[in-house]
Amino acid sequence: MARYVVVGAAQLGPIARSETRASVVERMIALMEKAASRQCDVVAFPELALTTFFPRWFMEDQAEVDAFFEKSMPNDDVAPLFARAKELKIGFSLGYGELTEIDGVTHRYNTTIIVEKTGEIVHRYRKIHLPGHPEHEPWRPFQHLEKRYFEPGPEPFSTAEAFGGIFGQAICNDRRWPETYRELALRGAEMVLIGYNTPVHYPLAPEHDHLQNFHNHLSLQAGAYQNGMWVVGIAKAGKEEGCDLIGQSCIVAPTGEIVAMAGSLSDELITYDCDLDRCKEIRENIFNFRLHRRPELYTALTRTD
Amino acid sequence: MARYVVVGAAQLGPIARSETRASVVERMIALMEKAASRQCDVVAFPELALTTFFPRWFMEDQAEVDAFFEKSMPNDDVAPLFARAKELKIGFSLGYGELTEIDGVTHRYNTTIIVEKTGEIVHRYRKIHLPGHPEHEPWRPFQHLEKRYFEPGPEPFSTAEAFGGIFGQAICNDRRWPETYRELALRGAEMVLIGYNTPVHYPLAPEHDHLQNFHNHLSLQAGAYQNGMWVVGIAKAGKEEGCDLIGQSCIVAPTGEIVAMAGSLSDELITYDCDLDRCKEIRENIFNFRLHRRPELYTALTRTD
Repeated sequence: MARYVVVGAAQLGPIARSETRASVVERMIALMEKAASRQCDVVAFPELALTTFFPRWFMEDQAEVDAFFEKSMPNDDVAPLFARAKELKIGFSLGYGELTEIDGVTHRYNTTIIVEKTGEIVHRYRKIHLPGHPEHEPWRPFQHLEKRYFEPGPEPFSTAEAFGGIFGQAICNDRRWPETYRELALRGAEMVLIGYNTPVHYPLAPEHDHLQNFHNHLSLQAGAYQNGMWVVGIAKAGKEEGCDLIGQSCIVAPTGEIVAMAGSLSDELITYDCDLDRCKEIRENIFNFRLHRRPELYTALTRTD
Repeated sequence: MARYVVVGAAQLGPIARSETRASVVERMIALMEKAASRQCDVVAFPELALTTFFPRWFMEDQAEVDAFFEKSMPNDDVAPLFARAKELKIGFSLGYGELTEIDGVTHRYNTTIIVEKTGEIVHRYRKIHLPGHPEHEPWRPFQHLEKRYFEPGPEPFSTAEAFGGIFGQAICNDRRWPETYRELALRGAEMVLIGYNTPVHYPLAPEHDHLQNFHNHLSLQAGAYQNGMWVVGIAKAGKEEGCDLIGQSCIVAPTGEIVAMAGSLSDELITYDCDLDRCKEIRENIFNFRLHRRPELYTALTRTD
C-alpha cells in the first residue's frame, strides 16, 4: 500500500527590512501556484516568512518590534494567501511572529501553522528552543535576539491529522535537538515541516561557519532516519540585509536520504511524492520504539534540576 | 588550552567460529602495539571482540552458547592483553559476552569495559538497547538472537574519569538511538567509545542494505555534533562465517566531522589526536544544555506506558 502526500518546500530568498508583507505574500503566492500546478497537497514556507529576520537588530522601541508581529491570523495582509490556497485546493504551512493576548496578558511567540485545503488552521506550534541571547551584544556583527523578542513556547510538541497523514511542526533551532524529532515521532508524526533562518556566520564559534550546511543536513537527516519520518526543511536563504543565510532546503525520506534539495539561495520550489507508509520500513523494524527503546533507563533526559 | 587524548580505533576483521581466543588476543595485541608506537593513550576494540558474532546462530544447548561468554574478566585467555597493555602503559576498551552470578542468579550481558593504563578496569557498561529477536526465525539467512542470549543491561548509561577526560561507552545498536548520546553527554562525557558488529544485510528491510554505511556514520556523526563529544566507532568487519559486516570504523570530532576512517574490512588501526577541550566549542555555545534545552516539555521521552 502507498499513501502519498505530494509536498512542496517553498524556499524564500532574502526579504528586505523595507519589503511590505503584500510584496512577500505575492512571492509566496507565485510559489504556491507553481506547487499547485505540480499537484502538491501542501506547500511549506519558512520560519518568520512574512518579514525580514528582525531579531538581527536590537530595537528599544517595543512598537518598532511589534510591527514585525501578526496580531491575528489570518489578517488583511495574509488574506490573499489564504484565499488563493482555498481556490487552488492546496494546504500550506507558514511561520510568523505571533502577538496574542491570553487572559489579558500579551504574549509574543515564534509560531508556525498548518492550514488544510479547506482553509482551516489545523495545527499551531510555538517554538520551544529559542536560540540566541536576551541582551544587546554590540560586539556581534548582527544580533540574534530571539530570547529577547519571543517567549519560549509553553507547550510540548504536538501533531495533527492533515492531508491524510499525521503532521508535526518545528522551527529552525528546534531541528538541531534530537528531542524534537523523538517527541514528535512518539506522538505519531509521519511528516515534520521545519522552516529556518540560519546565518552562515555564528559569532560564538566562527570556526564552524564552513560547517553550517553540513550541520543543517546532518540534523534533518538523523532526525528523519532515527524516527522513521519524512522531514522537510525550508530555508529563508541568501544575503538578507547584509547577513548571509544558508539555503539547501530539502525533503528527507524516513531513511535519512535527501530526495530533493534547493540549488539556489532565492525563491525556489522543490517537490517530492512522499509515501507516508514508508515510515513503517523504519518504525516497525530497526526503530520499533515499543520493542527496543528503554525509557525507564533514560533518567537524565528530563531532569530539570 | 588543549587537553589531548590520542585514541586508536582498532577495527578487527572477521573472526571464524573456530578461531581461539588466544589467536584473537594475538591479533589484538598486534594492533595494541601499533597503537602504542603511535603514542595512543587508549586503543578501542569492537563489541564481542574475543569471538565470532555468535548471536547469528540458533543454539539449543546452553553450554554451547555459554562457551562464547567470559566467566571472569580478566581471565586466562585475555590475561596476555592486559599484561601487554600494562607494559606498554596504554589503556584499552574491550567488548565481550559477560556471564556473571549476582546473588546466586546467573546473568548474561553484552558488556564493554575501559581499562586504564594501570591495568585497572575503570568503567563497565552492559548494553541496554538489544536488537534482534528472542526466538529462532528459520526464514532468515542468519539469526540475530541478541534478545535471546543476553539480558538487557539493567543500569542507565554512565561515565568514568579516564585518560584525563570523561569517558562513556555504548555498544552497536545503542549508537542508532539519540538517547544514548544525550544520556552520556548530560553525564559529562567528552568521548564515547562504541564497538559494533553490523551485518550489511538486514532481513526485515533488505531494501535498505545499501544504506548501512550511511546510517552508521549518520548516527555517529549526529550523536557527536548534537552533544559536542568525540565519538569513536569500532567495527568488527568483513565476511565472517558467510555474513558480511560493515567496516568504516571512524573517529568523529565534536563538530560531527569524521577525522579518521578505516579503509579496509580487516584488522586496521586508525588514530587521531583528540583535544577534549574542543567539546566546549559546541557545548558552551549552540548546544548549551542549560541555556537552551526544555526538559520540562519533553513529556513523551520517558513515558513507559
